[in-house]
Amino acid sequence: MSKDKKKSSATIIFDISKEENFPDWYGEICRVAELAEIRYGVKGFTPFLPWSLMSMNIMFDLYEAALQRKSHLPMLFPTVIPESNLRKEAQHVEGFTPEVFWIEEIGEGQKLEERLALRPTSETAIYPMYALWVRSWRDLPLKRYQRCSVFRSEVKSTRPFLRGREFLWIESHNVFKTYEGARAQVMEDLETTKELVTGAFGIPVMVFRRTAWNKFPGAVDTFAADTIMPDGKVIQLPSTHDLGDNFSKAFDIKYLDENNETQFAYQTCYGPAISRIYGAMISIHGDDKGLRLPFSIAPYQVVIVPIFKSDSEQVVMEYCREIESSLQKAGVRVYLDHRDETPGWKYNYWEMKGVPIRVEAGPRDVKNKQAVLFRRDILKRETVDHANLAEQVKNLGKTIDENLSSIADAKFEGLVVDADSIGLIDDALSKSRIARVPFCTIEPEGLGCSETIKDKTGGEVRGTRIDVEDKPEGVCVICGKPATVVVYVSRLSY
Amino acid sequence: MSKDKKKSSATIIFDISKEENFPDWYGEICRVAELAEIRYGVKGFTPFLPWSLMSMNIMFDLYEAALQRKSHLPMLFPTVIPESNLRKEAQHVEGFTPEVFWIEEIGEGQKLEERLALRPTSETAIYPMYALWVRSWRDLPLKRYQRCSVFRSEVKSTRPFLRGREFLWIESHNVFKTYEGARAQVMEDLETTKELVTGAFGIPVMVFRRTAWNKFPGAVDTFAADTIMPDGKVIQLPSTHDLGDNFSKAFDIKYLDENNETQFAYQTCYGPAISRIYGAMISIHGDDKGLRLPFSIAPYQVVIVPIFKSDSEQVVMEYCREIESSLQKAGVRVYLDHRDETPGWKYNYWEMKGVPIRVEAGPRDVKNKQAVLFRRDILKRETVDHANLAEQVKNLGKTIDENLSSIADAKFEGLVVDADSIGLIDDALSKSRIARVPFCTIEPEGLGCSETIKDKTGGEVRGTRIDVEDKPEGVCVICGKPATVVVYVSRLSY
Repeated sequence: MSKDKKKSSATIIFDISKEENFPDWYGEICRVAELAEIRYGVKGFTPFLPWSLMSMNIMFDLYEAALQRKSHLPMLFPTVIPESNLRKEAQHVEGFTPEVFWIEEIGEGQKLEERLALRPTSETAIYPMYALWVRSWRDLPLKRYQRCSVFRSEVKSTRPFLRGREFLWIESHNVFKTYEGARAQVMEDLETTKELVTGAFGIPVMVFRRTAWNKFPGAVDTFAADTIMPDGKVIQLPSTHDLGDNFSKAFDIKYLDENNETQFAYQTCYGPAISRIYGAMISIHGDDKGLRLPFSIAPYQVVIVPIFKSDSEQVVMEYCREIESSLQKAGVRVYLDHRDETPGWKYNYWEMKGVPIRVEAGPRDVKNKQAVLFRRDILKRETVDHANLAEQVKNLGKTIDENLSSIADAKFEGLVVDADSIGLIDDALSKSRIARVPFCTIEPEGLGCSETIKDKTGGEVRGTRIDVEDKPEGVCVICGKPATVVVYVSRLSY
Repeated sequence: MSKDKKKSSATIIFDISKEENFPDWYGEICRVAELAEIRYGVKGFTPFLPWSLMSMNIMFDLYEAALQRKSHLPMLFPTVIPESNLRKEAQHVEGFTPEVFWIEEIGEGQKLEERLALRPTSETAIYPMYALWVRSWRDLPLKRYQRCSVFRSEVKSTRPFLRGREFLWIESHNVFKTYEGARAQVMEDLETTKELVTGAFGIPVMVFRRTAWNKFPGAVDTFAADTIMPDGKVIQLPSTHDLGDNFSKAFDIKYLDENNETQFAYQTCYGPAISRIYGAMISIHGDDKGLRLPFSIAPYQVVIVPIFKSDSEQVVMEYCREIESSLQKAGVRVYLDHRDETPGWKYNYWEMKGVPIRVEAGPRDVKNKQAVLFRRDILKRETVDHANLAEQVKNLGKTIDENLSSIADAKFEGLVVDADSIGLIDDALSKSRIARVPFCTIEPEGLGCSETIKDKTGGEVRGTRIDVEDKPEGVCVICGKPATVVVYVSRLSY
């Protein structure tokens, strides 16, 4: 048995520099912490394993609770969409068709009359039914969402959680009487992003209005939160779309107003991709020893490691079970690790897995009615009294989450650098910074300047900030026309 | 406004005899209570609307909690399975291939190297990975489940929830060192079925060992719970499968035992179809006025209807909000209906929707610090004190669930009729009864006798009961050989 222990022990220590070699760090932590299985054998499709799925389920639950508090109700549409639906909105079909998985055949050679798409997003599944459901002004606003997986045949290289051909998300689809109602919903969605992505998951973001050439296909306007990965590249987190009446006209979503006149409705949609947020979250909080999961979304918030020799096993285990049960009663997710391994092996294992708090308890702790609490975020121990342990653990959980947020915020600050020339943009990007750039316009006419930036620096124009006030000064860094906006340029991740 | 009210009022009263015309009742309640949308336009695919999905989500949560208590962990595999995986177990491929949806093409004409199946069930997705994960006896038992939708191109006619081409389920896949371990898991699964389907959802069941010709494709043995629909036909609810080492040999799932020798593992799988259980649940508990949802899984357990004239609106609404908040605090799912409709319209609406408890409160109730509680199950009111309302509501909820269970049990009893001739079987089935029949064998040699029963009576041999002790007497009702088993014969629903 002791031979087995040593063998296991040797395999569990994780030590990779996240800052110096982020891609390696990410790939290895997904494998060692058993987050995703990359050997499934279909490009871009990866099974999600318990340790990641349990956190993603908590993230889904928090998101669903927030949406329901804001008067959205859940529904679930089929995974398949008839091809004719998909072709109803011209820009939308152009945007998504290249990535669609098609079903043409059932069983042994039975052809379908019409091809079915695996949903890449569900506007074209849902809106024909909205046309049937929305009749009168009394039916509005209609606020619904679904939790499901979607399918896009990404041409870019895939990576577990961050970019896959099947990913997990919530999509909310809403209908309003007025354009103002729709715009207010977009703002509410951005608040929800802040509340969850930044508040609950501790991920700092910048919020952008996207450029005309980088909007959701068919939308009037797209707003999205970007965060910055450890390698200095940005990644898009939830986006929300002002669809205006583009889709209601394509799908005939009309209502009778208070004066009995027919009006086209206005629409929005919002799509937090939970699997992608999870990928960003572990990247941002992790350190060279492995994961550091926020207390709020850790599958196990506390792991108890009993420390005993054969003569003290019974009394220590009894003490640990008592702690386990008191924590469970207080609603803490706890795991008592009584596996046949050494305490040291268990320490390494759970540190790599990112459990926020470890309780260590041995014979002396039993005697003194105390316990040792180990914090994963700062790798430090403190000895605490056994009384009120649950309350102490919960308070410590809050402290840990605040600390993880602060660490992430501190890294995030100072990443933005002013750049009013191509040389300065290039310089900022080469130092893994984000360039803040005077620019002509994010309306369609600005596309050329954006492409020049990309050709010369590899950077992407992410849009204009709506969470800070930026006053444009000087001239567009490319065309020399007066700058009407300030845009942010960065390397794009995944 | 009052014209609108009258118009709405006229449309909401539901009154169809469930016993006399069950198919009409079922179709209409799905439409009127807004449970499913049958106009989606792809045969067998129906969007699930908030009122059904909210209950199904609660059912999923209860199921997941039970599985996790029994040491299963969640995971999630891709929706698509490579064709070569599907072809690895001969009986399995024969059973499922005729129903598979195939993906051959991506985007604009890009052919895949290998076709992908939409999962009809996930053995062939999961087990190749189990072959990688299971190495040593220390890895076992391996108990995992996933919550997802599956796809089968049913040839039978479809019906919302009861039989669809995409349905919602949990599938649990487990690996054991010994055959005994696998058999014990099968028994645990049947306990879980009893605990949830009968205990929490109030659906009476009979538990069968299926005949050799009606097993899960590739299984050694299949056990399943059947319930009886209002039209006297049976419907299969969760089934659990003893896979023996059939799949571990096909997929090469081996482990090193304590003596360092290589052994094939034994496996089980279990598949509660939540959408189907929901369909059976509403069918069994509903009455001629609509749904009757158990308190345990109703989206709203309580609806509050304020009763006021313009001069009393403020004081009544204040009182109702206080009740709402005290119920919420106690963890009751409650909805305060302040829509611009008459109380009578709201009564009809929520009775049709099946909300278990209605609180009615008017000015007199405010004055007397009381509330009227209306029970949907027996359509009766009682006036109760405002103090301890939450506790009274919870207790009443328990009483309602017990009552719904008793009503269902009472109908269930007496449905089984002894029948030792074709004439008696035919007679039982024509009276919407289940025939209890002496039979030669449910091993493969019994197939002929089973087919004769089907040809002559339209009845299906459901297998032998494992939840009651049946002693075979006399001879097989068809071939006249000595009866070795007692089987149950019934008409099959959906």
